[in-house]
Amino acid sequence: MEQSNNKPIVAIIMGSDSDLLVMSEAVKILDEIGIPNETTIVSAHRTPERMNEYTKSAVNRGIKVIIAGAGGSAHLPGMVSSHTTLPVIGVPVKTKSLDGLDSLLSIVQMPPGIPVATVTINGAKNAGLLAARIIGASDKSIQEKLEKYKTDLKNMVMEKIELLDKIGVKDYLDKNK
Amino acid sequence: MEQSNNKPIVAIIMGSDSDLLVMSEAVKILDEIGIPNETTIVSAHRTPERMNEYTKSAVNRGIKVIIAGAGGSAHLPGMVSSHTTLPVIGVPVKTKSLDGLDSLLSIVQMPPGIPVATVTINGAKNAGLLAARIIGASDKSIQEKLEKYKTDLKNMVMEKIELLDKIGVKDYLDKNK
Amino acid sequence: MEQSNNKPIVAIIMGSDSDLLVMSEAVKILDEIGIPNETTIVSAHRTPERMNEYTKSAVNRGIKVIIAGAGGSAHLPGMVSSHTTLPVIGVPVKTKSLDGLDSLLSIVQMPPGIPVATVTINGAKNAGLLAARIIGASDKSIQEKLEKYKTDLKNMVMEKIELLDKIGVKDYLDKNK
Amino acid sequence: MEQSNNKPIVAIIMGSDSDLLVMSEAVKILDEIGIPNETTIVSAHRTPERMNEYTKSAVNRGIKVIIAGAGGSAHLPGMVSSHTTLPVIGVPVKTKSLDGLDSLLSIVQMPPGIPVATVTINGAKNAGLLAARIIGASDKSIQEKLEKYKTDLKNMVMEKIELLDKIGVKDYLDKNK
Amino acid sequence: MEQSNNKPIVAIIMGSDSDLLVMSEAVKILDEIGIPNETTIVSAHRTPERMNEYTKSAVNRGIKVIIAGAGGSAHLPGMVSSHTTLPVIGVPVKTKSLDGLDSLLSIVQMPPGIPVATVTINGAKNAGLLAARIIGASDKSIQEKLEKYKTDLKNMVMEKIELLDKIGVKDYLDKNK
Amino acid sequence: MEQSNNKPIVAIIMGSDSDLLVMSEAVKILDEIGIPNETTIVSAHRTPERMNEYTKSAVNRGIKVIIAGAGGSAHLPGMVSSHTTLPVIGVPVKTKSLDGLDSLLSIVQMPPGIPVATVTINGAKNAGLLAARIIGASDKSIQEKLEKYKTDLKNMVMEKIELLDKIGVKDYLDKNK
Amino acid sequence: MEQSNNKPIVAIIMGSDSDLLVMSEAVKILDEIGIPNETTIVSAHRTPERMNEYTKSAVNRGIKVIIAGAGGSAHLPGMVSSHTTLPVIGVPVKTKSLDGLDSLLSIVQMPPGIPVATVTINGAKNAGLLAARIIGASDKSIQEKLEKYKTDLKNMVMEKIELLDKIGVKDYLDKNK
Amino acid sequence: MEQSNNKPIVAIIMGSDSDLLVMSEAVKILDEIGIPNETTIVSAHRTPERMNEYTKSAVNRGIKVIIAGAGGSAHLPGMVSSHTTLPVIGVPVKTKSLDGLDSLLSIVQMPPGIPVATVTINGAKNAGLLAARIIGASDKSIQEKLEKYKTDLKNMVMEKIELLDKIGVKDYLDKNK
Repeated sequence: MEQSNNKPIVAIIMGSDSDLLVMSEAVKILDEIGIPNETTIVSAHRTPERMNEYTKSAVNRGIKVIIAGAGGSAHLPGMVSSHTTLPVIGVPVKTKSLDGLDSLLSIVQMPPGIPVATVTINGAKNAGLLAARIIGASDKSIQEKLEKYKTDLKNMVMEKIELLDKIGVKDYLDKNK
Repeated sequence: MEQSNNKPIVAIIMGSDSDLLVMSEAVKILDEIGIPNETTIVSAHRTPERMNEYTKSAVNRGIKVIIAGAGGSAHLPGMVSSHTTLPVIGVPVKTKSLDGLDSLLSIVQMPPGIPVATVTINGAKNAGLLAARIIGASDKSIQEKLEKYKTDLKNMVMEKIELLDKIGVKDYLDKNK
Repeated sequence: MEQSNNKPIVAIIMGSDSDLLVMSEAVKILDEIGIPNETTIVSAHRTPERMNEYTKSAVNRGIKVIIAGAGGSAHLPGMVSSHTTLPVIGVPVKTKSLDGLDSLLSIVQMPPGIPVATVTINGAKNAGLLAARIIGASDKSIQEKLEKYKTDLKNMVMEKIELLDKIGVKDYLDKNK
Repeated sequence: MEQSNNKPIVAIIMGSDSDLLVMSEAVKILDEIGIPNETTIVSAHRTPERMNEYTKSAVNRGIKVIIAGAGGSAHLPGMVSSHTTLPVIGVPVKTKSLDGLDSLLSIVQMPPGIPVATVTINGAKNAGLLAARIIGASDKSIQEKLEKYKTDLKNMVMEKIELLDKIGVKDYLDKNK
Repeated sequence: MEQSNNKPIVAIIMGSDSDLLVMSEAVKILDEIGIPNETTIVSAHRTPERMNEYTKSAVNRGIKVIIAGAGGSAHLPGMVSSHTTLPVIGVPVKTKSLDGLDSLLSIVQMPPGIPVATVTINGAKNAGLLAARIIGASDKSIQEKLEKYKTDLKNMVMEKIELLDKIGVKDYLDKNK
Repeated sequence: MEQSNNKPIVAIIMGSDSDLLVMSEAVKILDEIGIPNETTIVSAHRTPERMNEYTKSAVNRGIKVIIAGAGGSAHLPGMVSSHTTLPVIGVPVKTKSLDGLDSLLSIVQMPPGIPVATVTINGAKNAGLLAARIIGASDKSIQEKLEKYKTDLKNMVMEKIELLDKIGVKDYLDKNK
Repeated sequence: MEQSNNKPIVAIIMGSDSDLLVMSEAVKILDEIGIPNETTIVSAHRTPERMNEYTKSAVNRGIKVIIAGAGGSAHLPGMVSSHTTLPVIGVPVKTKSLDGLDSLLSIVQMPPGIPVATVTINGAKNAGLLAARIIGASDKSIQEKLEKYKTDLKNMVMEKIELLDKIGVKDYLDKNK
Repeated sequence: MEQSNNKPIVAIIMGSDSDLLVMSEAVKILDEIGIPNETTIVSAHRTPERMNEYTKSAVNRGIKVIIAGAGGSAHLPGMVSSHTTLPVIGVPVKTKSLDGLDSLLSIVQMPPGIPVATVTINGAKNAGLLAARIIGASDKSIQEKLEKYKTDLKNMVMEKIELLDKIGVKDYLDKNK
């Protein structure tokens, strides 16, 4: 597994390397916030035994949150959840034929007893932020970074508002063409 | 596991005993055709280890086809398929909120490499018949029984046609009220 | 707000008292696991100011996870998430006309920056368990209780398996009629 | 805010500047009809306090109709509606994964008490026209302009009909290639 | 047409008397707020000429907003909109087979030029409130009544909150059984 | 086949006798208009040969329009269409799990070359009327009956309008309880 | 209107010239079969009066079948059907946001009394063929042409079968690249 | 028909040569595993008689599994299933307008009595693998090849895992651009 400098506490896994581009948004935001994380491929369907072993070893290595991305019959998040009591975040990856609706329903409609925290279709960034919020629930320093992130987000919007106010709709659109 | 008289060659499994009424249609049709079968509960989410073990032991005990029913985030058929090279038939069980669409998409949209033979929503009878067709592909006696079943089905329709022809729409509807 | 004996660390809120029956499943499971919680009504649409105030006061009172249930144009979970950096769990409540699909999409399709941890339609029990997993990520005693819950769940399934094995499909179905 | 020459009476807001191109159709049609308007960004999720303040100040500044565009978990129109008693028009902006169905359901399925006047997916032009009709309901001069717009629309169709009649299907298609 | 005491300024029409129960919610809320209104049946499909005449006469009689409810291939709101420049509010009525999705899409997906202000499926109450907001945009007394309605709504929620706070989840649910 | 007094010119067929209640609406309206018709069961799946033979014999016996009702994987209308050059009308019958959406798409999405005239889900009455319109296109007497039917339909609506006008919304609803 | 050499008996109309490319497939097939036809634009929304007049004049001029194409809130086919007793064929035109599902449901879900013969999304060719079948139901020469068309279609497939049989999958695919 | 060297035991058929590219994935995987197969075009709609004859002759020639691909109103798999007692695998081919949902529902929602083993939308590779599993259920040498295929699949994933572990997310993404 690729690891950040420190002992990773968030694991980002996905069913196939074709999901890596989408899922790398979770890596980016966690790196930005400063939460050590690791990324690897765990296929519920092609490597079912590894899924079980990885999940258990991850817990032992100190992982506190697992982010799992998958598309279509997206079984990875739910199956990982059934192998652990850690919070598992599911990212429905958009598919070629049904626009991600299949991924979403396969991940979110879990039976009572085995929860998966599902985020937006292709929403790996939100998965990273949700992991940070979970860590932050018992870690003030992370919560402060999240507050700062939120303020930055707000300021970015405020700058756009000012620019739009100053140059008007037409010029704003021309600028962003 | 509940077993028929002879060594079972078709296994009927489901995620929860709440699916048993729907899935018992597969048992009935297999019993009717005379294919030894066994029925048990295997939860992908609540008993993930058992799923793996059951699948492997089933193969060793001579099971040739596995029928798996599940609803919602219906992972059982796909996960069983990832643990075996036997043909796996998936029955999407109708759910309370999304009318079975979630079950259907979770089961049918499998990634390349791990097929699931999906049938109609709540279609356990068709799952049983499909299992019989698979057995029948290399067993003439079963294929003959399937031919007979088909003829019976046709004859049943022909009788209804004659009755409708004889008594007319109104009386036919009154009779079936 | 109704509170458990100890200082609540999980808040369960909903848009309307018509969602209370569904959401009470979260209360039950949290009580069962022993996590102090509080329950109240916060309408994003009818009491928008209260939503903001409640969210902020909740954080100050030591709440670590907020569970928000809503149906239709289900804005509560997302709006609460935009007022806090705590993890927010969204429960899509089933609606009269679109079977909960509207609630699900309104809650899960959040824009980058503001995550909501969405669970099953009407899945308040899973919301409670997810909250417990989040608390458990930094609280060994809760994690142990979750492990026990998981084992109990598994044992309950195992008992059903044995019963089905013993009495067979027909009698099992008769018993549960 | 960008303002037209006169005191604006219609406000066009959106959750993100990525919606500006779609929403600028509302600006165009209002300018064409001659209804003073202002355009700005108000994010329900990233700037929730501003949403509240903006809505209230807008009313005080004489705004009579608010047009709000948003995509995905599109909370802006409904939340603005909960902060005012002005008519609020919602424009569901088409999304990358679910073709705008998520935006539409998030905007239109409002609970009793808080209405949003929802228009076509990406239908900012219709939102502008609806705002004009609302203003026109108590302003004869605007209503006359709308009658003229309607006649122009009809005439434009009539010209196309004549052209098609004159040159035939094949040439008409060649001309518009 | 059934009329309120004063000259009606809002017209409530529907495609069939089977929609009357749903649509009567609009009548109730308008009566409550004190906006004179009239109710009648206008079928786009069965009485197309009347639709045209009614729409034109309505304008002449001083109607300012038209609320139109319809189900399935719900053409009434859009066709009425094409015969007038008044604001037209569409209420998608829930259908027997597709849960109101057909009604919703038939009403909301209008082409550029002919807007319909669509509300919630079966949302006649919101249609009445939207009509009131449109009237209120140029009538202070109505706007004040809407502010009062909003405060009442909020107070009703606050009372429920207090009750729930006082008696707890279990007793609250028992009371509302 | 059940036949009307005269030589039938419209055939009403369905995949199963469970569709007879829905399809009998087509019989009723054709009888009412006075178009001789016959009704029988033709299963595309259970009696495929009969489908072919029936279709061909029907043409020879003077049938001019075939109405075919089916649910789920509704192949009957399309397959009948592929065996004839007569106009074939398809009635999507509502199903237990997907609300008739499966029936509708299976019937309407025919490939280029083999048309099916699809009507409303469960819309057997409209199927009968469409058959009558097709017959009427070259039979003045039928067209006149259709004109009369249309006028009757309009008059029935007009009577309801008058009644509603006379007794008001409340009493009208009470009367129809 | 553009007319074929002889007096047209099929009219092809559409809501906008943007639908002309799709709808021209109906013109082509009718020309091919030799059925005189006319094509024009009739907007239910932008030219509602013309729709009424056109429909009536069409009947007087000897039109026997009307083909109407429309997208989104596709009211044209249903409204034309409400103005005539001729058979009306509806072509749902694919839309930018909902993939034609809105067009399909708006056209097919007509209320009892006013049928529309709906074909495939973008299925103008099938609409033309259905019109020909309707004409053919009382015109042997057209029916014979349809039989010939059917045989040609079959032969075209047979030729492809032979080619595939001769050159194999790989070469066939290379040839059609 | 194009045939492999040996007597084919799996038949791959499709409704149109436009489906050949998608369906050729089934040919490839069967060739790879070493199962003799044949490919041809059989249109349920354009060559209905041939469908019947082909199905029967296929059985006589020793075919054991039929794979049928079709799009839209995808009747081929179900109709072939109604003409045989062999296992029939249905491949829903993605369509231009409804993203393959129409194909999926037309194929999977078969009535009781006539099963179709449905796979992923455009999932011809899985169809080939399912056919191999069916053959393998009574042929050890095929089952061994399937076990090898499964191991290869797993090893391919393991190699990717190692590479990702070694070079990290950023370089991995750069490499695969």
